[in-house]
Amino acid sequence: MPLLVTGSIGLDTLETPAGKREQVIGGSAIYFSYAASFFTPVRLVGVVGEDHPKHLFKVFEGQEVDTGGIEIRKGSKTFRWHGSYVKDMNEAVTVEVDLNVLAERAPKIPQNFLDSKYVFLANTHPVLQQEMLASLKAPKLVVADTMNLWIQTQREELVKLLGKIHGLVLNDGEARLLTEERNLITAARQVLKMGPKFVVIKKGEHGCLLVSDRGAFVLPAYPTEQVVDPTGAGDSFAGGMMGYLATQGGITSAATLKRALAYGTVVASFTISDFSLDGIQRANRDQIDDRWHDLKTAMSF
Amino acid sequence: MPLLVTGSIGLDTLETPAGKREQVIGGSAIYFSYAASFFTPVRLVGVVGEDHPKHLFKVFEGQEVDTGGIEIRKGSKTFRWHGSYVKDMNEAVTVEVDLNVLAERAPKIPQNFLDSKYVFLANTHPVLQQEMLASLKAPKLVVADTMNLWIQTQREELVKLLGKIHGLVLNDGEARLLTEERNLITAARQVLKMGPKFVVIKKGEHGCLLVSDRGAFVLPAYPTEQVVDPTGAGDSFAGGMMGYLATQGGITSAATLKRALAYGTVVASFTISDFSLDGIQRANRDQIDDRWHDLKTAMSF
Repeated sequence: MPLLVTGSIGLDTLETPAGKREQVIGGSAIYFSYAASFFTPVRLVGVVGEDHPKHLFKVFEGQEVDTGGIEIRKGSKTFRWHGSYVKDMNEAVTVEVDLNVLAERAPKIPQNFLDSKYVFLANTHPVLQQEMLASLKAPKLVVADTMNLWIQTQREELVKLLGKIHGLVLNDGEARLLTEERNLITAARQVLKMGPKFVVIKKGEHGCLLVSDRGAFVLPAYPTEQVVDPTGAGDSFAGGMMGYLATQGGITSAATLKRALAYGTVVASFTISDFSLDGIQRANRDQIDDRWHDLKTAMSF
Repeated sequence: MPLLVTGSIGLDTLETPAGKREQVIGGSAIYFSYAASFFTPVRLVGVVGEDHPKHLFKVFEGQEVDTGGIEIRKGSKTFRWHGSYVKDMNEAVTVEVDLNVLAERAPKIPQNFLDSKYVFLANTHPVLQQEMLASLKAPKLVVADTMNLWIQTQREELVKLLGKIHGLVLNDGEARLLTEERNLITAARQVLKMGPKFVVIKKGEHGCLLVSDRGAFVLPAYPTEQVVDPTGAGDSFAGGMMGYLATQGGITSAATLKRALAYGTVVASFTISDFSLDGIQRANRDQIDDRWHDLKTAMSF
């Protein structure tokens, strides 16, 4: 079943201990779409400026990603982010950010995308997230991401959104900020009270935590020595997770969610193995399944 | 089979967001012994001063811990540590430390302990660790812990020790300091080259990592909302792990080590549920096995 994603598309300048890349393609929707497309067809909604790189539409070659929802806005400039992981591979320092077209109105979801049953609302203003959700006909499984900025400045709108979605994905710092709880399980349970049926807390190199009314599940990151560029790890994780869930007919049992989290974890391990999209572009479904089974074996005792 | 442990015994003053306790019994050998005694008889070697609290020998009531190796040294004072977790539950800030008797000569291992086959050398000066090891007749499985201080000031002696032991337990910061490698798997592989057959890296609330020549295994911490006092978590983890290994006839296969790590993880979850030894003292083997099976189920997907 097609999976709709709305999120950012941008040009990244990346610095890590392994080197530097300038003006490479990035953004949450790009990483998410690539990751999800190993599992299910993806419908991508986003907006770029006139200055978008010509090879943007070639990024997904060989993958089933419908880029018909990417708006190229006249007179606007593409979102740009310059981040550095030189000091800490687990947390990016933003050197420079130019929101550009992201600070304008949201892109419109194309008519032929409105019947999407599986939806991921990547991080953006919670009012825009609600508007996009409201335009869909009958979504079956809606999961959203958010960030510190909205928790701090748009809490009321964010809480409204939480009442309308099935799952929330956020990182550990954001979960603590949203709930003012230090313990992540306690924090996740607080989020459940706001509406979602499940919460996934991403902990970077320390893996992730899933909490639903059926308990807590902790999954470490895929153990790898190949960490070149963590950019997009969280979005690839969410893409792998949602891509798998979209193949499961909307079932979100504990067992299905665990398998989905493991797929997200494995797909992210390919993303971080090289700069920008180079790592995930070298992966294929067989390799993903191999690592998934490795992880399953490694985790059982 | 009896398990020998040599390590510190002290009086702790503990501050956490949950409150404060003054001059309570602590020390690596105390937590380790209690944790291991759920699995196997323990022989405890350590030294205290004349000022040791009278109830020290009652701490292990109901557990099979032979305290015949605790030396009460005339004219000396017991080790004291004052730590605070008020700012960060994952890392203690040392407010005050008085090494006292720990700065003197090591305790002597009693004659009737010298045939011990299973040995844990808790953190102390690597020369003392080597001396104690040399006095044992025919140890079958020797695991050691260490700390930043020795890595920085006694690297040569520490490396000598590493050539003589089967396993090393250390925390993430120590592993990075010892090897100058940021990636923990790479760091662990570097340690393997120095001698040990396996390395366990403790990551506090993020669980632990096992690396041997048969691969890497990552286990998250037991997911719990009850975190009152992290003191002794690492020592309880090592105790649970070694206690289980001592029942397995010296087998250190990947499967056995994984089960051992899971036991360590579970025992530590009881320790941190209350101040000092209160949490672990309320645990019993049935509860430990229950949580172990819970963890096993939670981790499988």
